[in-house]
Amino acid sequence: MITALLAIDVGGSTSRATLVDTAGRCLGQGRNRGGNPASNTPDQAAAAIIAAVEAAVADAGADELDIVVALIALAGPRAHVAQARLETAFRDLGLSGPLVFAGDLEAMLASVTAAPDGYCIVAGTGAGAVRVRNGRIEEVVDAIGWLLGDFGSGYWLGHQAAIAAAAALDGRGEETALTEAVLASLDIAPSDARSPGSRPVMLQALVDAVYAMRPIELARFAPLVIAHRSDPVAARLLTEAERFLVEDFRMVFDPQMPGPVVLGGGIAAHLTGLPAGIAEIVGAAGHTPDVRLAKDGAVGAVALALRVIGHDIDDTAIAAIAASIAARARQAPAT
Amino acid sequence: MITALLAIDVGGSTSRATLVDTAGRCLGQGRNRGGNPASNTPDQAAAAIIAAVEAAVADAGADELDIVVALIALAGPRAHVAQARLETAFRDLGLSGPLVFAGDLEAMLASVTAAPDGYCIVAGTGAGAVRVRNGRIEEVVDAIGWLLGDFGSGYWLGHQAAIAAAAALDGRGEETALTEAVLASLDIAPSDARSPGSRPVMLQALVDAVYAMRPIELARFAPLVIAHRSDPVAARLLTEAERFLVEDFRMVFDPQMPGPVVLGGGIAAHLTGLPAGIAEIVGAAGHTPDVRLAKDGAVGAVALALRVIGHDIDDTAIAAIAASIAARARQAPAT
Repeated sequence: MITALLAIDVGGSTSRATLVDTAGRCLGQGRNRGGNPASNTPDQAAAAIIAAVEAAVADAGADELDIVVALIALAGPRAHVAQARLETAFRDLGLSGPLVFAGDLEAMLASVTAAPDGYCIVAGTGAGAVRVRNGRIEEVVDAIGWLLGDFGSGYWLGHQAAIAAAAALDGRGEETALTEAVLASLDIAPSDARSPGSRPVMLQALVDAVYAMRPIELARFAPLVIAHRSDPVAARLLTEAERFLVEDFRMVFDPQMPGPVVLGGGIAAHLTGLPAGIAEIVGAAGHTPDVRLAKDGAVGAVALALRVIGHDIDDTAIAAIAASIAARARQAPAT
Repeated sequence: MITALLAIDVGGSTSRATLVDTAGRCLGQGRNRGGNPASNTPDQAAAAIIAAVEAAVADAGADELDIVVALIALAGPRAHVAQARLETAFRDLGLSGPLVFAGDLEAMLASVTAAPDGYCIVAGTGAGAVRVRNGRIEEVVDAIGWLLGDFGSGYWLGHQAAIAAAAALDGRGEETALTEAVLASLDIAPSDARSPGSRPVMLQALVDAVYAMRPIELARFAPLVIAHRSDPVAARLLTEAERFLVEDFRMVFDPQMPGPVVLGGGIAAHLTGLPAGIAEIVGAAGHTPDVRLAKDGAVGAVALALRVIGHDIDDTAIAAIAASIAARARQAPAT
């Protein structure tokens, strides 16, 4: 019987479950697709989370686990996952202690610093900025989902790329390298033909392909914008995304609270103008900017889980958790 | 036994069926919700169309009908309605002749002019512009649906209104009269409270309400933008919508073919700057602008149906059809 903690980082695209021992050493990891509320039913979200946990338990390879706490760091309201279903599944897998929820952004902050005060700017599938004080979110800007906000996110970039490709094919928009990239990623062959309704067949194929997707899946085109950053249209989109996120940060920034500022999500690291925009705002308040890239939300989720069972987590402990997870990933790639 | 023609105008928000006699006189009308392909399954579209036709047959009140042609003027590809289901239902209602499809934009042009050449600019739930030559669409710009285009449409205006309201509540966006209007239309009570995640409860309620809707339903906020045109944010949105549609027209305009230019859809009449923008383009090519508002797509659908059975439809005939439908509507409001 191994005593373990279970920490689950649920993002828009991926759910990752990590099992650690009471010293924070990684025992196993598992992943599945994302489970965020704007693009999943509560049952779909629960199913993705449970599948990730089952993979982590299998990866740990232990005969029997006593899981003393399960912590889920989740984007969006917890009402959007089927909690009873999670609880039942976790009990079957050996959970004897509490099931605790935290925000994915608290986990992001905890992944790089033990500081209880700071900021997170996230640009993953979604986007927004938060001010965290005493380990709790005090203020949040944007992060309201693909249909109303998430400006500058992976969804936003991908959606704009699809719009730019469609506009170019329609003759309304500027020519852009994104057109060929988007079409190729959808396996749409080049063609000069026009369909009976006098629309280019490539445009009709793009329209058909996009309406067959769930809207949130448009985020898959975001890497194309990043890969084509030398294209003027792509470059403008990236600059606009940076501007949205810098303005989000300006809204949550308290001049009395300098930082640190943690950048997280799969897109943030590619928004190369973001650190300078943040540094300007922090610097104008008379502080030395402390901008860091969040590397692994799983590390933060583990740190939060260890805090739940009373561990005093400092920066050294966080570094040790990160090293253990990285070593485990090298040793046996997470499934 | 009465010999009749059936003409059905299927838009994004409403499907309207009209029964006329062989002289084009209105026998009955019926309506149901829209059946456009971007927001309905083929079966949903067919069900809405059939319900509208059944209402028209009931409105006509005839014991027995011999329907010699059924014409459906449809936004989007006909593959997106369940044709076999329609055909079966229509045969049961008395269809003895062919089932014919036409575009909703051809019907729009035919609703105000017998001219075989011209332009339609549509701003209804969707938006775009077409050039029609010899009664067929020769060129189309935009009209590719809510997720990729339809810029300046009712969906676009409604979506932008929801985004503006959310941004204002989030502190990112300008204060606007649209916020209160959108919240009131969703029965969200005014409140200064913040939810536990530090978000205003009104914003959270808006987010919850919008994600519970099908995206296309955001078009219901478009009338709020029109009603608040003195608000600076609303005014800018209306100006932007006009600009999109003027640019669409510029793309389809052939300087050798002056018009007429027909404006259709529930939004177009409220875009008060649109006629001037079009007149400038037509005038610059040395022609006298002939811009008209399409009043009733049902009139155009009837004209197209009469053409199918060999009638020679001129402007006088179109005016007579319009007068007959209007008289019928006054006499017994369409259900």
